[in-house]
Amino acid sequence: MTQPNLTKNDGITPRSQDYSQWYLDVIKRADLAEHSAVRGCMVIKPHGYAIWEKMQRELDDRFKATGHVNAYFPLFIPLSYLTREEKHAAGFAKECAVVTHHRLKSIDGKVVVDPESKLEEPLVIRPTSETIIWDTYKGWIQSYRDLPLLINQWANVVRWEMRTRLFLRTAEFLWQEGHTAHATEKEALEETYRMLDVYADFAENIMAVPVIRGKKTPGERFAGALETLCIEGMMQDGKALQMGTSHYLGQNFAKSSDVTFLNAAGQREYVYATSWGVSTRLVGALIMTHSDDTGLILPPKLAPIHVVIVPIFKNDAEKIKVLEEAGKVAGELKAQGLVVKLDDREGIMPGAKYYEWEAKGVPVRIEIGPKDLEKGSLCLVRRFVLEKEGETEQEQRKRKKTFVPCAEALAGIKPLLDTMQRELLERAHLLRTKRSRVINSLAEFEQFFKDGGGFAWVHWAGTHEQEEEMAKRFETTIRCIPLPDQIPADAHGTGSCILTGQPSAQRVVMARAY
Amino acid sequence: MTQPNLTKNDGITPRSQDYSQWYLDVIKRADLAEHSAVRGCMVIKPHGYAIWEKMQRELDDRFKATGHVNAYFPLFIPLSYLTREEKHAAGFAKECAVVTHHRLKSIDGKVVVDPESKLEEPLVIRPTSETIIWDTYKGWIQSYRDLPLLINQWANVVRWEMRTRLFLRTAEFLWQEGHTAHATEKEALEETYRMLDVYADFAENIMAVPVIRGKKTPGERFAGALETLCIEGMMQDGKALQMGTSHYLGQNFAKSSDVTFLNAAGQREYVYATSWGVSTRLVGALIMTHSDDTGLILPPKLAPIHVVIVPIFKNDAEKIKVLEEAGKVAGELKAQGLVVKLDDREGIMPGAKYYEWEAKGVPVRIEIGPKDLEKGSLCLVRRFVLEKEGETEQEQRKRKKTFVPCAEALAGIKPLLDTMQRELLERAHLLRTKRSRVINSLAEFEQFFKDGGGFAWVHWAGTHEQEEEMAKRFETTIRCIPLPDQIPADAHGTGSCILTGQPSAQRVVMARAY
Repeated sequence: MTQPNLTKNDGITPRSQDYSQWYLDVIKRADLAEHSAVRGCMVIKPHGYAIWEKMQRELDDRFKATGHVNAYFPLFIPLSYLTREEKHAAGFAKECAVVTHHRLKSIDGKVVVDPESKLEEPLVIRPTSETIIWDTYKGWIQSYRDLPLLINQWANVVRWEMRTRLFLRTAEFLWQEGHTAHATEKEALEETYRMLDVYADFAENIMAVPVIRGKKTPGERFAGALETLCIEGMMQDGKALQMGTSHYLGQNFAKSSDVTFLNAAGQREYVYATSWGVSTRLVGALIMTHSDDTGLILPPKLAPIHVVIVPIFKNDAEKIKVLEEAGKVAGELKAQGLVVKLDDREGIMPGAKYYEWEAKGVPVRIEIGPKDLEKGSLCLVRRFVLEKEGETEQEQRKRKKTFVPCAEALAGIKPLLDTMQRELLERAHLLRTKRSRVINSLAEFEQFFKDGGGFAWVHWAGTHEQEEEMAKRFETTIRCIPLPDQIPADAHGTGSCILTGQPSAQRVVMARAY
Repeated sequence: MTQPNLTKNDGITPRSQDYSQWYLDVIKRADLAEHSAVRGCMVIKPHGYAIWEKMQRELDDRFKATGHVNAYFPLFIPLSYLTREEKHAAGFAKECAVVTHHRLKSIDGKVVVDPESKLEEPLVIRPTSETIIWDTYKGWIQSYRDLPLLINQWANVVRWEMRTRLFLRTAEFLWQEGHTAHATEKEALEETYRMLDVYADFAENIMAVPVIRGKKTPGERFAGALETLCIEGMMQDGKALQMGTSHYLGQNFAKSSDVTFLNAAGQREYVYATSWGVSTRLVGALIMTHSDDTGLILPPKLAPIHVVIVPIFKNDAEKIKVLEEAGKVAGELKAQGLVVKLDDREGIMPGAKYYEWEAKGVPVRIEIGPKDLEKGSLCLVRRFVLEKEGETEQEQRKRKKTFVPCAEALAGIKPLLDTMQRELLERAHLLRTKRSRVINSLAEFEQFFKDGGGFAWVHWAGTHEQEEEMAKRFETTIRCIPLPDQIPADAHGTGSCILTGQPSAQRVVMARAY
């Protein structure tokens, strides 16, 4: 997996030239994932998986802190279960991988599916687990004392997508799905909002991606939900990405699986449900929000490696001294709890190492050479700095690099990482602000998306069919109906629908989306 | 999921009466898992999954400490890939779940598999991932610089078993599978042994289950391996359980997927491979090694909850005082890094709480009542003590319970947990010693297994057919050919085969097994 000695930007198409290709190039250059031999499925390579592991740990801690426990339910869903909730079945029917046989057989030396091993009932690979989980909950819930039931599952799911894209849309993907059961509608709704907040907190404070919290329109709801809440992020090309959803399912699944409980008043009632999930798609969101033409940029809180140390030397005498110092520096940073990679590979030039680790998004590089030893200083290179207007690439490059006395450098890494984490969020905020606009006419709307688009804050009172008309004309969809506290000052208040002129209670966010 | 107010041992069949039923009863009473609606698949309930999570963390730390990284490969294996390695395909052909279609369809209001969505090539749900992973490695390995490649995957796999048993044998199970690539046979063999040692270390020092490290006989090797190493534990009924395997695959998979590399001498060579795995089966091993007729017993290092605190009071005035003290105690123990559960549920008698947490295997219980507050002491109850001969149940129960001044109790919990961890391993060692025998004649062998059996250390020089003969006659198999340092003093040396009288270089372990 060692990449050849590439130079800067090698193999990365600039964003300005072809954003889609840039995204794929960054994934390749940062060694995050690749298409597998199996249609629509990806291989998540070690560096990509390490980022997902960090996300998992952060999310899992938050789930547990809010009272949830993990469990595991079967991969397979009997066809008859999937179809119990009508809308749910309709929503997933077209993208189901179905197991029909359970044995292979050798016929004339060729291995084929044994026709005699046909299953009595086909098994669908879970596209999501509501149906099998609610069938299980039936045995777990008898009285209000058994509620709330707050369970999460980390699992793989399969949705047979026709057009796939690494991380963003793949036939198989990894995710977590929370499935909770409650005694009242109020509690279930509170849970739905609580988990949306958990996702938003994670997106902003860990991923450094600002998100808008909102509700989906009825046409965009999860199949079987009464309400779907979502967080929407903006990518660098101005397109929206749905980063997580939290559904209020009412009593739909309790009814289809007949899950009732005895309430405190001694009456039998159907249980109220929520479900919520985020997936490996978030790795795609991370890439598209922060990275640049040199490769991946990672918020320090999700970086599998915080600091890479590259030793520089010309002969064996220098090598011994430099490696000794590099080892010391690595040791002291590790003692601070940082993950440090001392890149002492032989046969690769320092420059090639710089580009490799930059492309992989390591936040800070330390270069150590004989001159640094003499001066007792270290050369620190940040993966990025906030852009200044009118600055040349060389000037910016210079700003990334500082020579700092050794002790000061060691004490300064953690604060530097905190700064970088904050600056990434700031930068993403800034981009979103630049590409968000309060729009009051269709003409302005059209022009906005002709000019590249972004988030259009518009009044809307159209029908589902009219939403589809907008999608056809402008390739835009209603990303969400933002929650009241998500609406910026200049977008408050009532108005009239951008398409129909009908009165509208609040603005929605329209955008092109992944 | 709250269990009714059960009393001690309720719903648990004694081991002496029916060991198999006891195993299932403990799982049910401890709320670890249950059969799902899907044939052969289990639901791992929160308490069972929490134990698996602790195992995962311990194992994952050890994999990373030995240089491995995690990645993720597709759930699906194209049929043609699975059949590339002939023996491998033959080994798994009879237990494959096969996906043949990718869409459902509504016909006359009934949802069925859409016949028009038939896949060109059937996809097998991975029973293990050698074939898809080695196909992927082909693109990752060019030269010796890319080696070794040390990758692990945490995943679900499916083997269509006809006779299933919770944790021990299920159609779908969770596991980790390491897949490594090396430049030389020597390195690959070293890796195979290294990972066996990692498993043995985990089994003994974390699970408190002593294991024998050995080689499988050729007939028992993993399909496609040149050598299969294993760790074998003994359960309380004297039966063996294979707890983990580490395979040396030679160049078999490299050849079937055409994975070559340029060695340092500039020659093209096939890559050498290993694979190794442990699964949720280990939860079964844990239960069967340590638990008793009261329920689950957990080694403290795998206990999701270390200490449960049960408050005792008769009126509101007592309740306030007791809960305040209980909260303080919980806080101080948490500050020590322990996981503490303060069971302040209302409407459940203290006695019922005792039995519930005992059945769930919490190592230490603290009872706090008004008398304890007066005396400034705490009542500590250990989940188990080492048995003393001739002791009544009541005497043993008394030894489990101690009243200790509060500060002393708080300081003593961690050392107590260490003691319990050590004692569980000791006890399991003792059991294994008691039920192991060096046997030199078939008559003695027959008698040993008539009397209940265990590990029989016997000389063996038979054929594979003769192994099968032994299996038919005595239900015993060769669990492993122990590595030299695993052979006890009284079992050393050469001898003659117990069945054929042919000369044998060393003894093997024969036993009945799960």
